[in-house]
Amino acid sequence: MPQPILAITLGDVAGIGPEVTARACADPRVRAICRPVVVGHPAVLKRALELVGSRLHVVPVARPEAVVHGDGVLSCWAPAGSDAGDVPPGKNDPRAGRAAYEWLTAAAHAALEGRIEGIVTAPLSKQALHLAGLHYPGHTEILAETCGCADFAMMLYVPMSGQWTVDSGQPSSSSTSRSTDHCPLSTDRGLGVAHVTLHTSLASVPGLLTRERVRETIGLVQRFLKEIGCGAPRIGVCALNPHAGEEGLFGDEEGRTIAPAVADAQQAGIDARGPFPADTLLRRAVGGEFDGVVAMYHDQGHIALKLVALDRAVNVTLGLPIVRTSPSHGTAFDIAWTGQARGDGMIAAIHTAAALARRRREGTGID
Amino acid sequence: MPQPILAITLGDVAGIGPEVTARACADPRVRAICRPVVVGHPAVLKRALELVGSRLHVVPVARPEAVVHGDGVLSCWAPAGSDAGDVPPGKNDPRAGRAAYEWLTAAAHAALEGRIEGIVTAPLSKQALHLAGLHYPGHTEILAETCGCADFAMMLYVPMSGQWTVDSGQPSSSSTSRSTDHCPLSTDRGLGVAHVTLHTSLASVPGLLTRERVRETIGLVQRFLKEIGCGAPRIGVCALNPHAGEEGLFGDEEGRTIAPAVADAQQAGIDARGPFPADTLLRRAVGGEFDGVVAMYHDQGHIALKLVALDRAVNVTLGLPIVRTSPSHGTAFDIAWTGQARGDGMIAAIHTAAALARRRREGTGID
Repeated sequence: MPQPILAITLGDVAGIGPEVTARACADPRVRAICRPVVVGHPAVLKRALELVGSRLHVVPVARPEAVVHGDGVLSCWAPAGSDAGDVPPGKNDPRAGRAAYEWLTAAAHAALEGRIEGIVTAPLSKQALHLAGLHYPGHTEILAETCGCADFAMMLYVPMSGQWTVDSGQPSSSSTSRSTDHCPLSTDRGLGVAHVTLHTSLASVPGLLTRERVRETIGLVQRFLKEIGCGAPRIGVCALNPHAGEEGLFGDEEGRTIAPAVADAQQAGIDARGPFPADTLLRRAVGGEFDGVVAMYHDQGHIALKLVALDRAVNVTLGLPIVRTSPSHGTAFDIAWTGQARGDGMIAAIHTAAALARRRREGTGID
Repeated sequence: MPQPILAITLGDVAGIGPEVTARACADPRVRAICRPVVVGHPAVLKRALELVGSRLHVVPVARPEAVVHGDGVLSCWAPAGSDAGDVPPGKNDPRAGRAAYEWLTAAAHAALEGRIEGIVTAPLSKQALHLAGLHYPGHTEILAETCGCADFAMMLYVPMSGQWTVDSGQPSSSSTSRSTDHCPLSTDRGLGVAHVTLHTSLASVPGLLTRERVRETIGLVQRFLKEIGCGAPRIGVCALNPHAGEEGLFGDEEGRTIAPAVADAQQAGIDARGPFPADTLLRRAVGGEFDGVVAMYHDQGHIALKLVALDRAVNVTLGLPIVRTSPSHGTAFDIAWTGQARGDGMIAAIHTAAALARRRREGTGID
């Protein structure tokens, strides 16, 4: 079987997206596990490859499934965004915002049609999207809309430390071959934290939590963990309130909403436990007691995984019919096009997408 | 000058409080920096010293200021709680709850009266307090009430890594002499995270945030950091909403409440910055960019510091007229009286209290 075709969208060309894409696509370990096709502007990609000192030759392709993969070449598909070639670095520009959106949706449609096997997205700028008249809080919501998907969740995932080695045949001591190098995670099974609510005000969170949404998110985490190869996923569910509400003393969402959702999941055979106070649960999870965590709101999960994994956590959209991952860092306009951006996050994201794509091909691991 | 007198309350005798107190008071580094007087039941303290293999002899004292400090002895003051001697381990018991409360308030009054120079509190059980008819969410609120204090804040503090060495004369390579041993904190200036709201439901948090409360908490952090010896404190202030509300897209508390409070603090000469998205701010702070952080709610600060400092973070109550610290761990009923509890958290708490007490004596560092 040939390696899976992954579309890698350039993101906002004024940010570090092109650079991290170039670094990742030039990495022999990435080239060994997938056939990448960059979705973006060929001239921008060429400049980014030069920036990172790669001699890869950009090969324009008319369709992503016509990917050319081999020594010295990198495929680039440009379904739109021809005016993004002149965007200056480090500034929000509507041309960059519009192009990032169109590359993303074109890649999503190609994946929905089965022409490619997954998409990995470089960061975009929400402000640039807004300048282009596109009012989305981020990638996740655009993809959910494009896929017509109501039940989805954003997960931050720190890959299993042994996984990369197994996939690429690289020695595990290689300093950049593991996404958990600088991370105190004491588990070798990886850790994924999914969010029941995401880009919404903190004040709106309690009203958005329902037994069904919490139950769905637990199910999405279970499905992902099995798909990525975790045999018997152990899932911890966060409380909303400090001390899990201290038995109703401050907040009753634990007993009213979260505990019933956990019971529903257990009834379905899922090893879900909680709700536990978020501060202790996340510490226990990082210590290896859980493979997946369900967080009730954005910062609950993000504070923990940004701390332990820095930018090496992979953003995975759960619940989509397609495979989609991205690095968890942003556009980093302040260092864009200076050659300082690291490719670790993008490499980890491609790695996770390739692993998911292979598992979907094999049709295993999915409930 | 003799070392400061610190009252160490035993906490809930069914938990690990007596054990960690015994371990800490038997530690020569602790005995070098303060004159400890345990507030609790002498027979319980004696059992705890035996459990940890200490030969210290318990000397009952009638008043804490009559502390006896010297080779082979440990003072114990028992102002109440004589019926707590028979409480079985690992279970909530109203006698233990009542005794913990009375030892705490007696110690606080002694500190208010200047008879001792600070209090360090071993963990108590809220359930045991409730069984005794005492309805408080924790130590912090009891102390605020006892001291008649409206403007207070709970801080989690990871001490400066070099500080202990300076204080005790112990080599810094000693494996237990630094509270940051297992912690990825890359700062050697320490880090304190204070909370604007604490034991309250998440739903109530937005309504409790006011410009004045945020400003007050910034001021309490500034005062603490100067008092502990941080020359020019750099304080970061968390946003409430994810992405700091994304310019009002989801939540407006940043512009309406938090930013004005930061501006007020800057006007008063404080190096406060923010509001920043909490996930990135806490990562930057742990990386050494800030000495203090103001969190808007309990889990925002606790998720971060529990992860990076495990149980070695010190709980400091800011805004009280007295010095008060405690370890950040709980009663751990599951391992109580089995000899497994570690003394690190209590040692760090005593260390921080001793440092604060010395600074107050010197009258320096306080605005």
